[in-house]
Amino acid sequence: MRIAGRPYRSIWLDAATGQLQIIDQTLLPHRFEVRAISDVAAAAEAIRTMRIRGAPLIGAMAAHGLALALAEDPSDSNLERASEELSATRPTAVNLRWSIDRVVAVAAALPPPNRAAGALAEAIAICDEDVATCEAIGDQGLAILRELSDKRDPKEPLQILTHCNAGWLATVDWGTALAPVYKAHDAGLAVHVWVDETRPRNQGASLTAFELREHGVPHTVVVDNAGGHLMQRGRVDVVLVGSDRTTAAGDVCNKIGTYLKALAARDNEVPFYVALPISSIDWTIEDGLREIPIEERDGAEVREISGKTSAGRVETVSLFPAESPVENPAFDVTPSEYVTGLVTERGCFEATPEGLQGIREAVRRPPQTP
Amino acid sequence: MRIAGRPYRSIWLDAATGQLQIIDQTLLPHRFEVRAISDVAAAAEAIRTMRIRGAPLIGAMAAHGLALALAEDPSDSNLERASEELSATRPTAVNLRWSIDRVVAVAAALPPPNRAAGALAEAIAICDEDVATCEAIGDQGLAILRELSDKRDPKEPLQILTHCNAGWLATVDWGTALAPVYKAHDAGLAVHVWVDETRPRNQGASLTAFELREHGVPHTVVVDNAGGHLMQRGRVDVVLVGSDRTTAAGDVCNKIGTYLKALAARDNEVPFYVALPISSIDWTIEDGLREIPIEERDGAEVREISGKTSAGRVETVSLFPAESPVENPAFDVTPSEYVTGLVTERGCFEATPEGLQGIREAVRRPPQTP
Repeated sequence: MRIAGRPYRSIWLDAATGQLQIIDQTLLPHRFEVRAISDVAAAAEAIRTMRIRGAPLIGAMAAHGLALALAEDPSDSNLERASEELSATRPTAVNLRWSIDRVVAVAAALPPPNRAAGALAEAIAICDEDVATCEAIGDQGLAILRELSDKRDPKEPLQILTHCNAGWLATVDWGTALAPVYKAHDAGLAVHVWVDETRPRNQGASLTAFELREHGVPHTVVVDNAGGHLMQRGRVDVVLVGSDRTTAAGDVCNKIGTYLKALAARDNEVPFYVALPISSIDWTIEDGLREIPIEERDGAEVREISGKTSAGRVETVSLFPAESPVENPAFDVTPSEYVTGLVTERGCFEATPEGLQGIREAVRRPPQTP
Repeated sequence: MRIAGRPYRSIWLDAATGQLQIIDQTLLPHRFEVRAISDVAAAAEAIRTMRIRGAPLIGAMAAHGLALALAEDPSDSNLERASEELSATRPTAVNLRWSIDRVVAVAAALPPPNRAAGALAEAIAICDEDVATCEAIGDQGLAILRELSDKRDPKEPLQILTHCNAGWLATVDWGTALAPVYKAHDAGLAVHVWVDETRPRNQGASLTAFELREHGVPHTVVVDNAGGHLMQRGRVDVVLVGSDRTTAAGDVCNKIGTYLKALAARDNEVPFYVALPISSIDWTIEDGLREIPIEERDGAEVREISGKTSAGRVETVSLFPAESPVENPAFDVTPSEYVTGLVTERGCFEATPEGLQGIREAVRRPPQTP
């Protein structure tokens, strides 16, 4: 997608030097800075400190991280060490494990001198596939948005509420929840996005609003508390969020607070769709509440916040004294019963064991356009 | 209640000078500063800019504001002008109107030379009654907390979640939702409070956590997004919030985001109690969603935030660029069906027309201890 009119991906190899590069998302929206990633430690650090985040992008970075590790030392022991280092960075996202396993399988089958090149090719393939997947999610979601739009006053924009950032900055390009929004906007369908601020890290206000602004999509930032009120007043036509991990029964683990929006959507008969790549489905578990470990992050994310001073410096300020303890769970689980549909690259499916079975079957067939 | 061991009210007349004083709550938790209020313009400004906030305290301030106005000019026209100026400061709280009407009735019945003294006496009475009311709410709520506590492992503290600040800083003393918490803690009942940060103004992290810290009540700050997750995990025994306005059918208008917590409480079978003085019931309306005007506040409250820098200065920083629009509704309405009970100074009642009728009848009887 575009920043100041120029197309970007969220992770890429510099055309001149071949160096791996990312946009340092911790500096957005105040500063746009490209950062080089030159070894596996830098890759792990970028995931852990959330310079890059979003399940698909984490997976892409881990794949490239393994390629960087093997370029330094292609031994079995280094491959194992690097996989472990990258796996340990974020416990919730299932793409991370999926992506690492995929590169390890390719590399381990090659003689050591060929491993770095093999891993790099696989990392590039993972990135390209992610772009294609997200664009397909966009097309599938666009069909849903068109249908919802047809049911209402065509002069008014379709009102979409989203939580956190499941945009192109969370993937390699297009995004998951935002891909249908970009597709709709580009196709001339009037849309307006309610952007949840998404405390504590404010990915909505910092990243989703940044993306939409740069792409010219009408949007309004609201605090996370406001979504229920907006739905009660009939000001939201559809909720569209991403997913970090979806179970084989359709439970959705996503950014903390997603569950509250799902409850409000149900209470106000607003459809609640989850957009996700099929790779983020964890087929090994059913009950999201009991089986998904929820990452507990540093309380400093709640206690401190960064912003721009009137003098233009980015400063971190403390919101309340350290004497008050903090808990900071990063995700919650939305039970499948609250999910209207799972929008995947192979179509929209019900969040039920039968719907998930439909996804399994769709994967075995060639892709179809909606 | 106590700050650093010394007892305070949130509004008082200085013993030496007779001057009206408040704690400037916009500076908390970073700076504790007492501010003198010497005329009606200062009183209105303190309400509008939220130096003081909370429905009961707004009412107390408006009463004192009228007394200050009449001390300068006791004419009918000035009484009317001052009432209008104070009424216009915040549109949602019903106590504001109630309190102004009460002082106006007293003052208008007096000859102009006696009006300032009469209004001051009435303002003092409103404050003292508020303290007694809140303490009675505390006693009534304590009975509920004791009952909930008896049902569970006595070694573990009772887990209470609250939203915004309905503590003593929102009233003259004791608070509404926090009065039962203070009563329980003082009575030796083990309690722990989950404090919702309460974006955008962070009254939870800034004021509720400050109050609980100064009083020694165990608590943990969480972002507003976390409450549903905590309830899903069985980590909340009861939700206890205040109310800015309650309808004659039991709908509750309170800080934006309250409704989302009520939905999560229902979904997880957690009791959801609302603590309120009977004066905050609006007997003229039934349907909160249709009939209560929701104050839309300045978007700067969402876009900007104040905190302490590492150098110890309090600075306001901007979280995202002005190019992204903001909406900032201050309250939402929790439909009565989600309210387990209304905890008032005259007992706990169901949030139904019958329960509200019970409140009407209780008001006519002498008060009873729970």
